[in-house]
Amino acid sequence: MTSANHFELAATDGAARTGRLTTPHGAVRTPAFMPVGTAGAMKGMHWREVRDAGSDIVLGNTYHLMLRPGAERIASLGGLQKFTGWNGPMLTDSGGFQVMSLSELRKLSEHAVTFRSHIDGVMVELSPERSIEVQLLLGADIAMQLDECVRLPAERADIERAMQLSLRWGERSKRAFETAAPGHLLFGIAQGGDVPELRHASARGLVETGFHGYAIGGLAVGEPQSVMLAMIEEVAPILPKDRPRYLMGVGTPEDILEAVARGIDMFDCVMPTRNGRHGMAFTRFGQINLRNARHVDDIRPLDEESPWPSTRDCARAYLHHLVKSGETLGAMLLSEINVAYYQQLMADIRDAIAQGSFESFRARTREGWARGDIAPR
Amino acid sequence: MTSANHFELAATDGAARTGRLTTPHGAVRTPAFMPVGTAGAMKGMHWREVRDAGSDIVLGNTYHLMLRPGAERIASLGGLQKFTGWNGPMLTDSGGFQVMSLSELRKLSEHAVTFRSHIDGVMVELSPERSIEVQLLLGADIAMQLDECVRLPAERADIERAMQLSLRWGERSKRAFETAAPGHLLFGIAQGGDVPELRHASARGLVETGFHGYAIGGLAVGEPQSVMLAMIEEVAPILPKDRPRYLMGVGTPEDILEAVARGIDMFDCVMPTRNGRHGMAFTRFGQINLRNARHVDDIRPLDEESPWPSTRDCARAYLHHLVKSGETLGAMLLSEINVAYYQQLMADIRDAIAQGSFESFRARTREGWARGDIAPR
Repeated sequence: MTSANHFELAATDGAARTGRLTTPHGAVRTPAFMPVGTAGAMKGMHWREVRDAGSDIVLGNTYHLMLRPGAERIASLGGLQKFTGWNGPMLTDSGGFQVMSLSELRKLSEHAVTFRSHIDGVMVELSPERSIEVQLLLGADIAMQLDECVRLPAERADIERAMQLSLRWGERSKRAFETAAPGHLLFGIAQGGDVPELRHASARGLVETGFHGYAIGGLAVGEPQSVMLAMIEEVAPILPKDRPRYLMGVGTPEDILEAVARGIDMFDCVMPTRNGRHGMAFTRFGQINLRNARHVDDIRPLDEESPWPSTRDCARAYLHHLVKSGETLGAMLLSEINVAYYQQLMADIRDAIAQGSFESFRARTREGWARGDIAPR
Repeated sequence: MTSANHFELAATDGAARTGRLTTPHGAVRTPAFMPVGTAGAMKGMHWREVRDAGSDIVLGNTYHLMLRPGAERIASLGGLQKFTGWNGPMLTDSGGFQVMSLSELRKLSEHAVTFRSHIDGVMVELSPERSIEVQLLLGADIAMQLDECVRLPAERADIERAMQLSLRWGERSKRAFETAAPGHLLFGIAQGGDVPELRHASARGLVETGFHGYAIGGLAVGEPQSVMLAMIEEVAPILPKDRPRYLMGVGTPEDILEAVARGIDMFDCVMPTRNGRHGMAFTRFGQINLRNARHVDDIRPLDEESPWPSTRDCARAYLHHLVKSGETLGAMLLSEINVAYYQQLMADIRDAIAQGSFESFRARTREGWARGDIAPR
């Protein structure tokens, strides 16, 4: 896992970076946002729309897929990309986070985490080795080490124990990954909660082990944004410049903009699709709640200057009607509108970094969000 | 409402006909299938997919739209086609059928039907005049007269009373429609249940009044297919050859094929989208239940020869997984797959009639359905 040229930096602007990550299923322009296709599907979106919206890579959840339809089954069907028809780069998480957040009965040991499936009640063991095996069966272009994520706020002793365990699991994950076909990538995950020294120790330990990329985990789990950004500032300088950096589970457009400013290259979040299902649109005017009665007679689109057809063409009154009526099409439209907004933001971020104008782009974009929506008519 | 050249017959083959219906929002190739966009949306489908699947015209439900978002509101927003972004031909029903089937408290008089809205509990009056007014406010290309539909089986006296009332409401609807802009069309509706003499009387009365097209209502409401086909055979010969004939609320692909053979030009049904939401696919092999475990490891598509991408490319195993997991994408894919199948069937029917080979097409198509799905692998 030495120099592999899988990541090329094209330009930097302050701490912000833009580049290109190469995977077996194609290239990923960074900074990259990965929409989350939990159980082999993007909720409310066809894969063609995910692609058209500008997504280079998507995330699949190991926890969901290993339980249903099963990793061995997906492997026998040709892998997740063929099974789903996405056919592009895919990152899978390790399954650890969902075990902690979704399964009720679970037992953590040095060896593995054991949990009861929320689907059929069967007890399942997930070790670092099994997590890697599952991710390779799924056909992940990028696999993640199994780690233990602690919800904040937490006691320092708990944070440290989980961080140390995650480091040991990282080493085991790397050994297990030695069977992977060439070109597949493994990322380590830095833990350490909100304690700078623990973050430092975690990042240094990971770099010593050596991974194709480095994730920062255990953030966006309840702490204020300022804490999240402070932790990125602690960790990023320790990570090698020639490896991609991935901030897990983040976040709002503002979180992303601020994390890019601190050297992050990759993101994933359910927010664009989940908020879309709840009637919220992400726009350059900030978030807009389509349930609001101000839209009921407004024939104007969300953003008449958007390059995305639904954002530019669908009447606010129509989106309001669909959301109020509980029509699936409302969730479908707002999911694609939101993923398209996120991907447009990433494209603009990449352009701004390449042109050395990231700071003015960041200020202008934040101003737009702060100004808020266009005046009601 | 005399000769208006809005309907041109291009060819006939036995009783089957193919032609072209002209509306203010464009032409409709007949025989035509109208997918049902109940509340201003096609459940689980983007309008672009409805169009791409080969739909020339869709149906909107007056009952739903007058209650929410309201007919006057839709008119002020530019009409249903602009509001929804469909922008093509649209037929609206009269609202009468949903009043009977969806609203609990209702009172029928010579003047109108009064009912309690299922959305906000307000009492609403729907007269033939108000129904036409609402449909014109919505911007319907084709409006339907208000009628009373009786569920079968029913007493002859009830069927006759409803049929006579529907005739009088047809005349009032025609008078109310005189304010419509040129090019908009009004269809009368033949009632009469399963009683041939009442069907004759209804059809003759309608023709005497004179409409742009004639619908056969009150079928596909619980009677056997043989009764439905027999009633079409009673009514169709009475209707003028130069006017389109619309069999309301029908039906399965087989119903459609048999009704076309008896001279029907237009159809509407929720079946392709509703069955799609329940895991069923319509194919040339008949209906396929994707919940069935036989698909769990089957990487083959539903029909590798289909011209519709999702039908040809999506693995059965993937559709099975989506349906079992309750993923929205399963309903979305099966809805578009089903609407595309219906529209392909209509296109093939039109071609066969034009080529004078409808009978052999009909036999071949029925054979394919009867043979059933491809063997499991």
